[in-house]
Amino acid sequence: WPGNYHTHAPTYCTVEWWPGNLGKTSTHAVVLAQLYLRGKSYGLHPFIAQLRSLENHQPLPGITLGDIGPKLGYHSNDNGFLGFDHVRIPRRNMLMKYSQVSPDGFYTKPVQAKLTYGTMVGVRVEIVSAGSYMLSQAVTIAVRYSAVRRQTEQIKGEKEPQILDYRSQQLKLFPYLAAAYAFTFTSFGVTDRYIEVQNEMNDGNMESLSELHALSAGLKAFTSYVVNKGIEVCRLSCGGHGYSQASGFPELYTIAAPLSTFEGENTVLLLQTARYLMKFTATAKRGGGLPGFVLYLNQRQKGQCPARSESDLLDHGLLSDAFEHRARRLVMEAAQKMQSNIGKGNPQHVAWNNCHMYLLKAASAHCHFYVVQTFVKYINDTEMSDAVRDVLTSLCQFYALHGIWQDAGDFLQDGYMNGKQLDMVLSLVGKLLDKIRINAVALVDAFDFRDEILCSKLGA
Amino acid sequence: WPGNYHTHAPTYCTVEWWPGNLGKTSTHAVVLAQLYLRGKSYGLHPFIAQLRSLENHQPLPGITLGDIGPKLGYHSNDNGFLGFDHVRIPRRNMLMKYSQVSPDGFYTKPVQAKLTYGTMVGVRVEIVSAGSYMLSQAVTIAVRYSAVRRQTEQIKGEKEPQILDYRSQQLKLFPYLAAAYAFTFTSFGVTDRYIEVQNEMNDGNMESLSELHALSAGLKAFTSYVVNKGIEVCRLSCGGHGYSQASGFPELYTIAAPLSTFEGENTVLLLQTARYLMKFTATAKRGGGLPGFVLYLNQRQKGQCPARSESDLLDHGLLSDAFEHRARRLVMEAAQKMQSNIGKGNPQHVAWNNCHMYLLKAASAHCHFYVVQTFVKYINDTEMSDAVRDVLTSLCQFYALHGIWQDAGDFLQDGYMNGKQLDMVLSLVGKLLDKIRINAVALVDAFDFRDEILCSKLGA
Repeated sequence: WPGNYHTHAPTYCTVEWWPGNLGKTSTHAVVLAQLYLRGKSYGLHPFIAQLRSLENHQPLPGITLGDIGPKLGYHSNDNGFLGFDHVRIPRRNMLMKYSQVSPDGFYTKPVQAKLTYGTMVGVRVEIVSAGSYMLSQAVTIAVRYSAVRRQTEQIKGEKEPQILDYRSQQLKLFPYLAAAYAFTFTSFGVTDRYIEVQNEMNDGNMESLSELHALSAGLKAFTSYVVNKGIEVCRLSCGGHGYSQASGFPELYTIAAPLSTFEGENTVLLLQTARYLMKFTATAKRGGGLPGFVLYLNQRQKGQCPARSESDLLDHGLLSDAFEHRARRLVMEAAQKMQSNIGKGNPQHVAWNNCHMYLLKAASAHCHFYVVQTFVKYINDTEMSDAVRDVLTSLCQFYALHGIWQDAGDFLQDGYMNGKQLDMVLSLVGKLLDKIRINAVALVDAFDFRDEILCSKLGA
Repeated sequence: WPGNYHTHAPTYCTVEWWPGNLGKTSTHAVVLAQLYLRGKSYGLHPFIAQLRSLENHQPLPGITLGDIGPKLGYHSNDNGFLGFDHVRIPRRNMLMKYSQVSPDGFYTKPVQAKLTYGTMVGVRVEIVSAGSYMLSQAVTIAVRYSAVRRQTEQIKGEKEPQILDYRSQQLKLFPYLAAAYAFTFTSFGVTDRYIEVQNEMNDGNMESLSELHALSAGLKAFTSYVVNKGIEVCRLSCGGHGYSQASGFPELYTIAAPLSTFEGENTVLLLQTARYLMKFTATAKRGGGLPGFVLYLNQRQKGQCPARSESDLLDHGLLSDAFEHRARRLVMEAAQKMQSNIGKGNPQHVAWNNCHMYLLKAASAHCHFYVVQTFVKYINDTEMSDAVRDVLTSLCQFYALHGIWQDAGDFLQDGYMNGKQLDMVLSLVGKLLDKIRINAVALVDAFDFRDEILCSKLGA
């Protein structure tokens, strides 16, 4: 490598574990390592390190690496371990777009440290997309199978019904069909926001980054949990055949499984979202201006859900308000529990740990509201035929009402909704199942997955 | 085969799919097939059929069989397909313990048709045991890992805490630790009942069989759902390592996955439980005597949960009453919805389908109550030291309170519990996490799994 050399090379052993293609395939890696200059630590920085000879592919001196062994899935992928022992690299191997180290060993810090967040946030936004894509594949297979498979004569002498006609099958699949659409629109929304914020940052405006970071972290966690559960429910809904590789589900399940773990473990991410929300409830209480989506925290709570009839409960605005109310209540409750814990003399980190359950619920509810609101907005703001609008409207209503049913405690706990309204919610869920059934196959065909992608005998 | 021969052999093609060891290994099979005598069908009966030559292991004439191909798990198991084409077997190959076919082709029906249910019920009882065993393995690995793994400095300069000290980790694992114990005691209880009922049946008393059938079907479904979810949560709780085969989780997950599908698909089973419950609500309304566990349906509903303080909510009797109330309410609601549907002129099968969501909730709540009640009874009725009783009591309280929290809507919907009580439930869940943490490792060590069984680097 041309240029001046200084012994900035790490002189301690580092061990990496898990990166794809690390163990056998890669000749070079970008390694994030602690930068020390004159004994002082400057934090994590990225360095290019060559791992293997370009002549014979053997590991270079001081480098130990290999494959970490069999996994749940991604069997054809080489996931590796890597250790460095006194490996020297040129100074210029440090990636110096944002921070620099001069030839005489002096550090120039980045103009804006947060610029490096960009990739991490972008990857999480991508995971929301990828997850919605995988869930869409799973529901495609399961809905098609359920339309073909017939079971149990209901009227003597008549054909057995398609299992898609059974409410129990619809109850399994349609929430995830609705979620697949919801998360697709969520990914559109948060991707647009990501591009917006990237442009602001390129103009030197960093204001929105914290909120985007918190939102993308939370949405990555929120959606991937549902995606993983959904793929498994779809697999189980096909009975024994879901256990066969020929269904496509084993592959889909094992490939999707890491969504909840990599690029930020889900619980850690939700707690990051919660940390941001706690910071801004302080601001909300002071009546300060809040950026973007989080503005809802500044609004006053309504006492009760105004729904008097089933048709009231089909109103998108009312449904969105319900999720807004619940998110705001849970965020405020978490803040109050934190204050109470600290008031008892607990240090910050102990209070934080004690409040995990409230913080996680708050972050999750915040994301759930975003997903509902984004679904509603997409239908409102996008040009489409009346027929398509009608179908997506039912799906959106179902997503929201089913969500209320599943988390009914949250909506009832403060009296915002009452038992009678919950009865109506359940009744509507049943009616919407019938409506969605009519178009269920069309709704999955609309994802337009090629058979070579689905790799499924059941869902071809 | 000695004895008289008649052409009772099936003359149509049958196809089997999935049975273990069918494709390559077995030389004989017990085949359940329709019995026709003189053109009249007598229903399913069991027949021994030879599949392969004892000389060279080749399939016999008219027999087509083989392995069904790669699966999600059980890779070392041969799961087969099997077809018969005009295969003749001797009359005496029919298993004739209960029903017989004479040499001149006349049918003697079983003294009691229900005796053949015995095996099916017994297998489902076994699945409750097997599931509790697999979940216990999963929590063993996850709790041990969480006690060893340290992460994120909380106080500068001090050792990173064990991740088992984080509430978020406890919230993931302890519900399944409690469930593993709960389901272990459930399996004791339902196994005892099974033996009791078998003895009654041998004396000609069939009264309890329907209830046991409904209970075992429901418990198989209820517990296996939780077991499968729990294994996945335990796997995810170990972060990236849970994706490695070395954790033991991929194997455990894929082996446990069929619990929800085989020996009766879970939804079908819960609907069978519901069918029994609907039959007996009719009886309950008429004030008739009800057998066994189901007696609770005959009791009057209390208006409200009497808990005024957190210590009230720790009372086992009060907690059991809450689950009883919820089960009774949901069973009665399902019955009322059925009546209403039929009242609108819907045929029985349409009303049944329309009410699936209410029927499934009713059956599930019925089983949940059984599990809670059985846990409480086990602690009350079993001799143990005070120290052990104290530990199991906390676990039982946690199982019940966490269950109320997760399904809070059910307890709030009719006003049986209120928001203030739910606040206390959440607060107690937090306090019990701390209590259980102290003994968590001991609680999993108590399962006493050998390392060769766990096959886990994380949980050794």
